[in-house]
Amino acid sequence: MALTFYYGSGSPYAWRVWLALEHKAVNYELKSISFSAGDLAKPEYLAINPRRKVPAVVDGDFAIYESAAIVEYLDEQYSTGKMLFPGSIRQRAETRRLVREADEYLAHGLERLVDQVLFTKQEKWNQEEISAGRKAFVAELDRFEGYLHEDWFGGEVSAADFAVYPIIALCLRMEKKKADLNVRGAIGPNMAAWMKRIEALPYYDKTYPPHWKAKP
Amino acid sequence: MALTFYYGSGSPYAWRVWLALEHKAVNYELKSISFSAGDLAKPEYLAINPRRKVPAVVDGDFAIYESAAIVEYLDEQYSTGKMLFPGSIRQRAETRRLVREADEYLAHGLERLVDQVLFTKQEKWNQEEISAGRKAFVAELDRFEGYLHEDWFGGEVSAADFAVYPIIALCLRMEKKKADLNVRGAIGPNMAAWMKRIEALPYYDKTYPPHWKAKP
Repeated sequence: MALTFYYGSGSPYAWRVWLALEHKAVNYELKSISFSAGDLAKPEYLAINPRRKVPAVVDGDFAIYESAAIVEYLDEQYSTGKMLFPGSIRQRAETRRLVREADEYLAHGLERLVDQVLFTKQEKWNQEEISAGRKAFVAELDRFEGYLHEDWFGGEVSAADFAVYPIIALCLRMEKKKADLNVRGAIGPNMAAWMKRIEALPYYDKTYPPHWKAKP
Repeated sequence: MALTFYYGSGSPYAWRVWLALEHKAVNYELKSISFSAGDLAKPEYLAINPRRKVPAVVDGDFAIYESAAIVEYLDEQYSTGKMLFPGSIRQRAETRRLVREADEYLAHGLERLVDQVLFTKQEKWNQEEISAGRKAFVAELDRFEGYLHEDWFGGEVSAADFAVYPIIALCLRMEKKKADLNVRGAIGPNMAAWMKRIEALPYYDKTYPPHWKAKP
């Protein structure tokens, strides 16, 4: 039985898991959750993830949520494809540190912007909060720019790249569609080149959020 | 050469690593960072952790920070003592999910309270923010109470227990010393019994924050 992947278009955390599944060449069935239809609050989904969030994965009779934990699970459970935490114990530790930093610092800058730009009506936007969120996000972009000494964050493609990329992509999407955040201009040369490398991965197009494809 | 553990008394994240080092019976040298002396901003510490936080670990010529990543590193690098992520692949995935939930949801409720109660002068406390932070924290306590089906969060003692306990202990410390948060009264019977189990671990007393010992 194939693993079931509960996905929501636009969630950077769900995108991370999609990239991870493809990178590892795991067989999966993708089930798209509709946020607007209230799928997250339905009893059958609450039994899988009581936090009402995507992503989640159900593998046989085992349900797991929180994208960082899912990615670790996939790497331990499946010997298909490539490693998500490749290399030496030190390299794996650094990849985990980077995933943790993406989730704690980069994602929390993003979430402040998302709360305003996507989840608040434009006439009620708190410009001070947008400005503070943008500042926090850009400071993290600078830090991650400094972390990029090679082609990939962890030396080779890893869970760190899949954690960072969707967060930045969502911010750029908000900038393009909704608000002049001036984030693209703050992306350094290392990160710009790295983003192109991610976008050239053979499975990248397949994982691009469907509703962004529909409305470029 | 023993591993060097950079510790700060009162940090729940540093406490987690101390418990992990003891559980695994790793040889370490503890270096206490003084927050008030500005140790975190000194160049020699910035070279170890540019985020100016504790904990950090230096093992030979390898420096690693972010407590969740340190704990994973210790478990992979040292075969001494017990496992921090014991059991089957599924059990390990759930332990990682719990660590992640502690860091994302429980810790962020705590941080809202810490910002007010410890880092803001009492006459400037924002009671609305304290009340909202307390509500968020107690909601997470309820959720974690529901996760405790056995003696420990992950079936046996694991990184999940060491992530959760210090967060709750710091909140109770704030309640005892600084502000009437009414958190102790919100701790359910499963969690109360589990806290006693943690406090009975043979290395617990050794890791109790020194400045709490000095001023009970």
